[in-house]
Amino acid sequence: MKKLTYAILGTGALGGYYGACLQRSGLEVHYLLRSDYDHVRQHGLKIDSQDGDFTLPEVNAYNDPRDMPRCDVVLVCMKTTDNHQLPDLLPAVVKDDGVVVVMQNGLGVENQVADIVGPDRVMGCLCFLCANKIGPGHIHHIDYKAIRLGEHTADATPGGITDRLTQIAEDFKKANIPATACDDLILARWMKLVWNIPYNGLSVVLNSTTDRLMADPRTRTLVEELMREVQAGAATAGRAISEEHIQTMLTNTEKMAAYKPSMLLDFELGRPLEIEVMYAAPLRVADHHGLRLPRIEMLYQQLQFLDPKA
Amino acid sequence: MKKLTYAILGTGALGGYYGACLQRSGLEVHYLLRSDYDHVRQHGLKIDSQDGDFTLPEVNAYNDPRDMPRCDVVLVCMKTTDNHQLPDLLPAVVKDDGVVVVMQNGLGVENQVADIVGPDRVMGCLCFLCANKIGPGHIHHIDYKAIRLGEHTADATPGGITDRLTQIAEDFKKANIPATACDDLILARWMKLVWNIPYNGLSVVLNSTTDRLMADPRTRTLVEELMREVQAGAATAGRAISEEHIQTMLTNTEKMAAYKPSMLLDFELGRPLEIEVMYAAPLRVADHHGLRLPRIEMLYQQLQFLDPKA
Repeated sequence: MKKLTYAILGTGALGGYYGACLQRSGLEVHYLLRSDYDHVRQHGLKIDSQDGDFTLPEVNAYNDPRDMPRCDVVLVCMKTTDNHQLPDLLPAVVKDDGVVVVMQNGLGVENQVADIVGPDRVMGCLCFLCANKIGPGHIHHIDYKAIRLGEHTADATPGGITDRLTQIAEDFKKANIPATACDDLILARWMKLVWNIPYNGLSVVLNSTTDRLMADPRTRTLVEELMREVQAGAATAGRAISEEHIQTMLTNTEKMAAYKPSMLLDFELGRPLEIEVMYAAPLRVADHHGLRLPRIEMLYQQLQFLDPKA
Repeated sequence: MKKLTYAILGTGALGGYYGACLQRSGLEVHYLLRSDYDHVRQHGLKIDSQDGDFTLPEVNAYNDPRDMPRCDVVLVCMKTTDNHQLPDLLPAVVKDDGVVVVMQNGLGVENQVADIVGPDRVMGCLCFLCANKIGPGHIHHIDYKAIRLGEHTADATPGGITDRLTQIAEDFKKANIPATACDDLILARWMKLVWNIPYNGLSVVLNSTTDRLMADPRTRTLVEELMREVQAGAATAGRAISEEHIQTMLTNTEKMAAYKPSMLLDFELGRPLEIEVMYAAPLRVADHHGLRLPRIEMLYQQLQFLDPKA
């Protein structure tokens, strides 16, 4: 099987980390950068990781998508708050028989991408990664790194396990990233929202790391109630989230050290918050099926009020 | 009719203001103070008010309730977070045929007082007052001042209009305070909660004055949704809050200038928050009747997490 070529749109902590891992495993990777372009072009990427630090002195760096070669796989790694740029970026970098993989949080972004490149050329990917950018082209990989990949479908039915899905998952595995091919991307997305919706929002509204939210019995209860609303929302989309999954999310988070969810980091840096894909989109799905989720609605209203963009 | 004597327990902005107005109208008033005792004993009380500034150079100031004469009317004006002191304070200052008037926010404090002095010697009073203490014995009366008084009953039925209720209301009116005698204290308390629950809590959680909460359409909607949950809670207690009342609260608040609710002032000063009487008590009433109020519950959980006392 021919080796796939990869494009990274948005070389921050997430895009830089996964791109560097793929490149180190021997694949051809092309990186789109903005502010770090000059530095990365000269010095490459530097990864500090619990798995071992490494440097890639030479990377294919671009600051204009029109200079990039068309690739087999385009990994969309920018913040969803920049997704208005996608119509301008994607057509230039994806091969005619290539695929765009949405490596972002939330719900519904695959539909936006499908509107641009067609519904048969879209996948979604959930990233369970703790990593921060600590300087230009310099990424600190703190913990976790697994991904879950799934095919997008126009009618929101499970997309099954395709050959291309398997091949991309294999590429990540060879790059030492635990990768799971999921037959139902929508279920995988709702399962991740079980974590994202309570912890991201409450960390911003209450200005708190996850450990304090879990240590206080009142906010721990609120976290669990928010998770149950996500479960109810998933059910309206025909996806069953198990009680076990909720308990696993709670227990795993309790075991974590003080952690700042990405939305809290964005908030502290005065960046716009990813609330549309993480809150508005799931609320729309539930509302479309006649279900109100009052606690998630309230969190969304509070976050809109606090959003630095506002 | 014999003139009534008044005791003020807690001479802060509220107790100091109403006490000074009653004293200026010719009534005998005795003030219990803590930190301001020495200053007020020497210099009296100073009121800056839109109705005209005035000073009372001599007031009956005490720092120990056992030094105070027993009074006909005891106005409980301290913060509810200090109510654990009531069993120690009240028996010393109220005449055997006297009455204790709870001038505090929230729900259920009259029951605590009734446990101490008996259910037939308790009233409640809602204060619509904007006033701050700006120095020892120095109060800035900013806006509003009206009160609504009602009789407490052991079985939570409307207490009707009694002679003593009328007489106390008349005393306030003579002191230039618009005072209304209410036949149903519980209804009056729920009507005030319609304002207090959304604005106090959201101002703390979102660190915002009322004008910004009303200017943002998302938080304005949340305010209204919280008001409707208060309305639903009142209904479980057999009290009907009209749609007109909700609209009046919204419209009046929109007309107000940037205003910091008392809970935001407490929060900024690192004082404990009055969340038990304002959130826990109404939630208990609704829950007792099988009704969950999810948005108020969530606000209560968030406030408990943020409470400086915690």
